[in-house]
This record gives sequence, C-alpha cells and structure tokens, in this order.
Amino acid sequence: MAEGIVKLLGFWGSPFSRRVEMALKLKGVPYEYLEEDLPNKTPLLLELNPIHKKVPVLVHNGNILPESHLILEYIDQTWSNNPILPQDPYEKAMARFWAKFVDDQILTLGFRSLVKAEKGREVAIEETREQIMFLEKEVTGKDFFGGKTIGFLDMVVASMIPFCLARLWEGMGIDMIPREKFPELNRWIKNLKEVEAVRECIPPRDKQIERMTNIAEKIKSA
Amino acid sequence: MAEGIVKLLGFWGSPFSRRVEMALKLKGVPYEYLEEDLPNKTPLLLELNPIHKKVPVLVHNGNILPESHLILEYIDQTWSNNPILPQDPYEKAMARFWAKFVDDQILTLGFRSLVKAEKGREVAIEETREQIMFLEKEVTGKDFFGGKTIGFLDMVVASMIPFCLARLWEGMGIDMIPREKFPELNRWIKNLKEVEAVRECIPPRDKQIERMTNIAEKIKSA
Repeated sequence: MAEGIVKLLGFWGSPFSRRVEMALKLKGVPYEYLEEDLPNKTPLLLELNPIHKKVPVLVHNGNILPESHLILEYIDQTWSNNPILPQDPYEKAMARFWAKFVDDQILTLGFRSLVKAEKGREVAIEETREQIMFLEKEVTGKDFFGGKTIGFLDMVVASMIPFCLARLWEGMGIDMIPREKFPELNRWIKNLKEVEAVRECIPPRDKQIERMTNIAEKIKSA
Repeated sequence: MAEGIVKLLGFWGSPFSRRVEMALKLKGVPYEYLEEDLPNKTPLLLELNPIHKKVPVLVHNGNILPESHLILEYIDQTWSNNPILPQDPYEKAMARFWAKFVDDQILTLGFRSLVKAEKGREVAIEETREQIMFLEKEVTGKDFFGGKTIGFLDMVVASMIPFCLARLWEGMGIDMIPREKFPELNRWIKNLKEVEAVRECIPPRDKQIERMTNIAEKIKSA
C-alpha cells in the first residue's frame, strides 16, 4: 500500500501545498516535488485536477488526489507512523471542523474582507481577531492543537496563518495576533518552529510578503 | 462508545439535515429529532453551534457535532454496522471529494447562478448540466455511488439533488437531469427510492417546491 513513487504538484507560497509537504516530511515519505509556475498552470496540473485546476495534487500508485485536507488524511491512512489525525471519532471531527473554519472563515475575513475593507479597516481587523480568538482558546494549555505532538490541524493553521496570512498583515503594517492578546497562539508558533518538518516548509518571508501584497493589490483594484 | 442518547437538531427541508437522518435510520440508531423553525432559530441551536448557527447538529454522549459531512463520518465510526464510507484511503478521499463538489459547486451553479441567471438562463442550465455530468460518469455501471449498497456519497447527492435542487428546478419548469441525457443518474434515483432509510427522508414534494421557490424569490430580489 505505502510503496510506490509519490509526486506532489505544489507551489512554494501556497499554504495548501506547504501543509502537504509538512506531512510528507514528518512521516519521512520520499517524494518528487513539481513546482507549478502559478498562474501559468502546467498542462499536467490541468490534466490531473480538471475540476478545480489547483495545487496541491498528490500522485501515488496511480491515485490522483486533489485538495489538501483529503490529501493529508490519505497520507495519514497510507503511512501510519507519526499519526496526524486523532483516532477518536469526536476529536477527529473537531480537528476537521477547525481546519475548515481556518480555510473558509479566517481566510475570507483575514484576506478578502480586510483587503476590501468595505466596513472600514478597523472593523475588518476586529472581526478577524474575534475569529482567531477561537483558535487561541483551542490551543490553550496544549503544546499543539493535536496535543503533545504536531498534527493535521497544526499543519493547516500553521501553513495558513503564521506563514501566509500573517505575511499579508505584515505587509500592511498590521500585527493581527499581538502577543498580549494571543499569548497561547504565540507560544504555539514558537513550538511549531522547533519542528524540523515545519521549518523546512516555511516560505521565504520577504518573498511571501511580496506575493501576498501583489494578490491584495489585484483584489483591491478588481 | 455507541451507547447514549442521540439528539439531532434538523430542519425538514434541509438536505444537510436529511442526509444525517438517512445515516441514522440506515444504521438503526434511535434518535430524538428536534425540528428547528428556520429562520427563527432556537436558543438551543445558537448555543450548540455558535460559529455557524446552522442545522444539522448532532448531540451524542456530550459530544456536539455540527456540519453534515463530519456528522456522517462520526456516525460511521461510532456505529460500525452498515458502513457508509469506503475503507480504502483513496476511495474514501474520492467520496469526500465528490461530496464537497456537490455541496459547493453544484449547489452554487444549480441554485444561485441559475436564479440570478446573470449570463442568461440557458447558459446557467448548460453549466449546471456540465457539472452534473461528472456525477453521471461516477455512477455509471454501479447500483450506488458507494457500489452495491448505499453509502456516504449517495446520501449527500440524494439529499442535495433529487430531493432538494430538483424541486427548485421543477418549480421553474426545468427538467435539469432528463432521462435521455442522464440515464445512469435516473437509474440511480430509482435505486435510491427502494431504500427505506432514504424513502423516509424525502421531504414532501410540493412543500419543498414551495420552500425552494420562496428562497429563489428572495435571492432574485436581493
């Protein structure tokens, strides 16, 4: 089952593809990485993911898998060392609930709503912080969202918030998750950076700020 | 684990809550059903699902679960008879992929885009049919999406398409999935109706047409 060549179509700045690399590295799965030159998508990407045309796509033993949440669970079931998803049905459901919350709610608020700032920039910041506060509560008293070791939800939040959205906020001069307001999340970010599989997947800071700022400019003027 | 009282907060016309009932009935899980009077949400719903404030919410052994996909997987893990999700990691990922496709892509196209019809009604119909054609291919040659017996993806598609969106289309005088274009899906709908757990969860046709038409009117004039 776990034999076979693994290929990953990804993009250096994409939180969705970076989190998949975190899981592969954590589990020690060798993989061939194919960098997509977004927005000039390769014919291979369009062929492998005709419906969404997005990275990441994982190819393993002839199986073609799109979408990061699905890929992370596939990886966890296929390579069972260093498990990243809880076994308990309720804990698993909740990890998936918060992952979706981050990729839907926080991404929308902390990016699109903030950039557009239709209700004003201060309101957008306040609304984003209110949502991030749910994560602050979730990680309180724990080393990682998953408990003692890094897991699925950690990878989702890490790739999306400190290493992606926070770069946009930095570029806008906003400290969205200040230490005095979010001590637990700041402690968690420190823990994250001690994990080699995470450290190797942090996009270069300045390059990510530039990329996020460019996307924001496009959304603003659209 | 599987002991304990099960409560479900639902709404008769909601595909998201109806699919959860299908799973509970298929597995023979007794449950107390609490009908929500949408849009006048009860304080209980707001308390149990403070983030999304939506049905369904399943309560079991003190666990509070929102969101139908998560609930279906929780049910499948907790009550293991009549499994609804594939065991194979790839098949499971694909079932979840198509479920998301139905709840995101087809719901948006076949409802909002069609009602708004900004590019014209015929274009909206054509685009919706193109997406539904992916499902036609998925079910080709099989009794159910899940194979020989009804499964997770069947419940998601059934509750959303024939018993919800199709009622809107009927109300608009559109046969979106005509037999000559979608023979396999029509065969599948016939198979569905032979499953008691499904039959018991089909919302009353005329009432659903009326509900969907009312929602469409609101979207149109918004």
